[in-house]
Amino acid sequence: QSQVSIYGNLDVSFGRFEEPSLLGDDDAVTAVESGSLRQSFIGFKGQEDLGGGLKAFFVLESGINVDTGSQDGNFWGRTSVVGLTGDFGTVALGNARNLVFLANDAFNPFRADSAMFSTSSFGFTNGPISTINAALAVAGTDISLSGLGSNWQNSITYTSPNLSGFTIAVQARLSENDDIDNGYAVALNYAAGPLALNATYEDAPITATSIALGTESADNKSWLLNASYDLGAAKLFAQYGQRDFEGFDDKYKFFQLGTSIPVSNSGSVLLSYSQGKLDDAKLQDLSLAYEHSISKRTSAYVGVNSTNIDGFEDERGTSFAVGVRHAF
Amino acid sequence: QSQVSIYGNLDVSFGRFEEPSLLGDDDAVTAVESGSLRQSFIGFKGQEDLGGGLKAFFVLESGINVDTGSQDGNFWGRTSVVGLTGDFGTVALGNARNLVFLANDAFNPFRADSAMFSTSSFGFTNGPISTINAALAVAGTDISLSGLGSNWQNSITYTSPNLSGFTIAVQARLSENDDIDNGYAVALNYAAGPLALNATYEDAPITATSIALGTESADNKSWLLNASYDLGAAKLFAQYGQRDFEGFDDKYKFFQLGTSIPVSNSGSVLLSYSQGKLDDAKLQDLSLAYEHSISKRTSAYVGVNSTNIDGFEDERGTSFAVGVRHAF
Amino acid sequence: QSQVSIYGNLDVSFGRFEEPSLLGDDDAVTAVESGSLRQSFIGFKGQEDLGGGLKAFFVLESGINVDTGSQDGNFWGRTSVVGLTGDFGTVALGNARNLVFLANDAFNPFRADSAMFSTSSFGFTNGPISTINAALAVAGTDISLSGLGSNWQNSITYTSPNLSGFTIAVQARLSENDDIDNGYAVALNYAAGPLALNATYEDAPITATSIALGTESADNKSWLLNASYDLGAAKLFAQYGQRDFEGFDDKYKFFQLGTSIPVSNSGSVLLSYSQGKLDDAKLQDLSLAYEHSISKRTSAYVGVNSTNIDGFEDERGTSFAVGVRHAF
Repeated sequence: QSQVSIYGNLDVSFGRFEEPSLLGDDDAVTAVESGSLRQSFIGFKGQEDLGGGLKAFFVLESGINVDTGSQDGNFWGRTSVVGLTGDFGTVALGNARNLVFLANDAFNPFRADSAMFSTSSFGFTNGPISTINAALAVAGTDISLSGLGSNWQNSITYTSPNLSGFTIAVQARLSENDDIDNGYAVALNYAAGPLALNATYEDAPITATSIALGTESADNKSWLLNASYDLGAAKLFAQYGQRDFEGFDDKYKFFQLGTSIPVSNSGSVLLSYSQGKLDDAKLQDLSLAYEHSISKRTSAYVGVNSTNIDGFEDERGTSFAVGVRHAF
Repeated sequence: QSQVSIYGNLDVSFGRFEEPSLLGDDDAVTAVESGSLRQSFIGFKGQEDLGGGLKAFFVLESGINVDTGSQDGNFWGRTSVVGLTGDFGTVALGNARNLVFLANDAFNPFRADSAMFSTSSFGFTNGPISTINAALAVAGTDISLSGLGSNWQNSITYTSPNLSGFTIAVQARLSENDDIDNGYAVALNYAAGPLALNATYEDAPITATSIALGTESADNKSWLLNASYDLGAAKLFAQYGQRDFEGFDDKYKFFQLGTSIPVSNSGSVLLSYSQGKLDDAKLQDLSLAYEHSISKRTSAYVGVNSTNIDGFEDERGTSFAVGVRHAF
Repeated sequence: QSQVSIYGNLDVSFGRFEEPSLLGDDDAVTAVESGSLRQSFIGFKGQEDLGGGLKAFFVLESGINVDTGSQDGNFWGRTSVVGLTGDFGTVALGNARNLVFLANDAFNPFRADSAMFSTSSFGFTNGPISTINAALAVAGTDISLSGLGSNWQNSITYTSPNLSGFTIAVQARLSENDDIDNGYAVALNYAAGPLALNATYEDAPITATSIALGTESADNKSWLLNASYDLGAAKLFAQYGQRDFEGFDDKYKFFQLGTSIPVSNSGSVLLSYSQGKLDDAKLQDLSLAYEHSISKRTSAYVGVNSTNIDGFEDERGTSFAVGVRHAF
């Protein structure tokens, strides 16, 4: 009688993990980690045919730290939406992946929810913002940024139907606070045979904290251009974008180049390099991995990530891992 | 092999929400909200035939804030019970909806788990108690009440079989603290054709805090009379009840009048007004909504709620929302 | 399309519960409790055939406090593992039951996850450590121990195939902290007809806190010998083990004797006594219960547990409960 599908992904790895540190010694640890290649989660979803091509649907996804048995963020923090889909397109309300995340997810060989290999340093709390903040702190700046995440809570997302290869998505995030602006984003996608293109624009305030400013909402206007091309022998990915953070003279400039190369019926080599710059801080991210499909739902992988922040001691962190990923 | 049914309800809305404020400006916000018409949740339940008409069963229900992706209270806070049902009736142990909640749920056109439209101000933490507390604070009283919720933890509930239209339910809540009395409640139900009647009595201490008293358990003896009659063209609801809180000369007096009017095969108008009074504080709640069934499991709704507390500035909060509700 | 099995156990009881107290009056309470005989939980598991006798599998289990509707520890704290199984044996990574827990689970008539009846005082946070800590506190010692739990997070477990009745399991827990040693354990099992034997060795640091030491990792080397024999008319259990905690001259010495006696086709009497000693502190645990299977998945039980700590006032706690347990 249940109308619900249960699905998910569990990714567990063993390796030597090192985060770059601006403030002292390396703290590399030998560890069992969750979600190194793709976030571990369990999901529940369902839909109902409403007639006339219209469907109601829901998606509930819960991130899991398999290594410790704890939940990964808010329980339904990965996705919790209800929506309608039909000839007019799709509308979803709730806690959704934001359009910048979706662009990073589609145009990076490591996708955007890889805890270890991610080179998607154009967004996300644990990405550029924490790195830039650390760099700014060492540089003596007292501005601290927060608020770039993978998801938009209290959001409404409209995605158009496919029109000759084009789709457009529009997203609004309600601040639910009269003192903070709502966030808006728009993404234009084009797909034709081996080619895929995307342009994403986001105007979504983040939180900036400093002695001078206190904690307040700061403008964050961003654009990101993305392309992929599947040559057959390899799929190529390229991204370029800028973020204009209020309170900074310079802009955060980002690019990523990547490729996935099928080397057998079941094995692929993944490679990606990204760079983000803001004033004197530079973040470089390089990942190389081999993933081997053991079966339809299970694969094994081995790889290395190296993250570097320019201009400071102990600025490099290099991690190695071997892992297994099981979809259900 | 699984004996488990998965089910639930996801309710998400967009609107302008305003809570009445006793202490300053209105704080109306434009928001995406969860559970405006009915609480969003996911549930797991199952049963086993034990022979001789006896069945064992369990219910686990988890509230969800779809808008933010967070859990709504304790994870299994909506319901977690194990029980036996048979010719003798039903016994359930665990965390259960209490009898006052069930009466408010059955005799109000908006039910009792509606975050926005609820006029069930005879119970529940976010209902009369918070309002009365605010009124009392403004009035200079230093007594603060807490402890009326939708659920009784550590409870045992017995529900009789239907005897010529009558059923009786008895519920005990163990305080698990020798200094605090256990809670007890009893409900008598009668149903015959279009008529339904209920009388609920509750003797369940709440927590009262004041400078004079400190934090201590306070008596709360309550009774609530409920009736509904289905005319066909409309179903009518009426409630009247009193709570005798220890430490107050006056009693909290409550009534609610409501109706649900089917206006087409798939559409209904819902209307309810309630009033609660304690000393000089008066809480008025008015809700009007239209709900339209799009299909068997999906409906859309639009409505307004206005909540008023007498005698203070900024005492009125009026909210408007349009939403969608999907059962699975 | 789902490859997932949902299963679990819900155990709820009513009784008079008393924990032994070293610091004052008894605090016996009449209560509805969860997991008195076996932990309440819900689980999700699945597997995939990889060919050649190899399978990938996952297990996610979440403890539930049915009485209050809250989660029991970390959400997936009971188990969260991904693994591979085949002719070579089984490897699982994640948050797993540790080998000491598994030995206590297999060689005690009350198993190891019984909140009320457990006599498995050779491990687990709420077992010997809290008791010993209380005893040490009363004795004026300022050392406090923590860190013995049922599970090892960040762990890797290898279990061999059955070789002529022998199996061996090896487990490592990564501390993920260069200042704390990893934990290791090995268990040797033998089973032949009615006889089962187990020897478990564990070298896994715990956390010791004292004014002199501050908080630091302390050695904990343990061994545990276990046996059971099924006479038909009764199954007998015996355990003996020692823990060598760094910083103590003496060793913690433990034994447990138990039996389960089938008294009818559907009823069993369970009896267990255990004793743990460290310096002047002695913990004694005695449990007696009768469990009656009502059906394949539902049983009822009644029983008593008495826990005693030697040498102090109010040192005895005796609990009585009647409960129902439903597997799904």
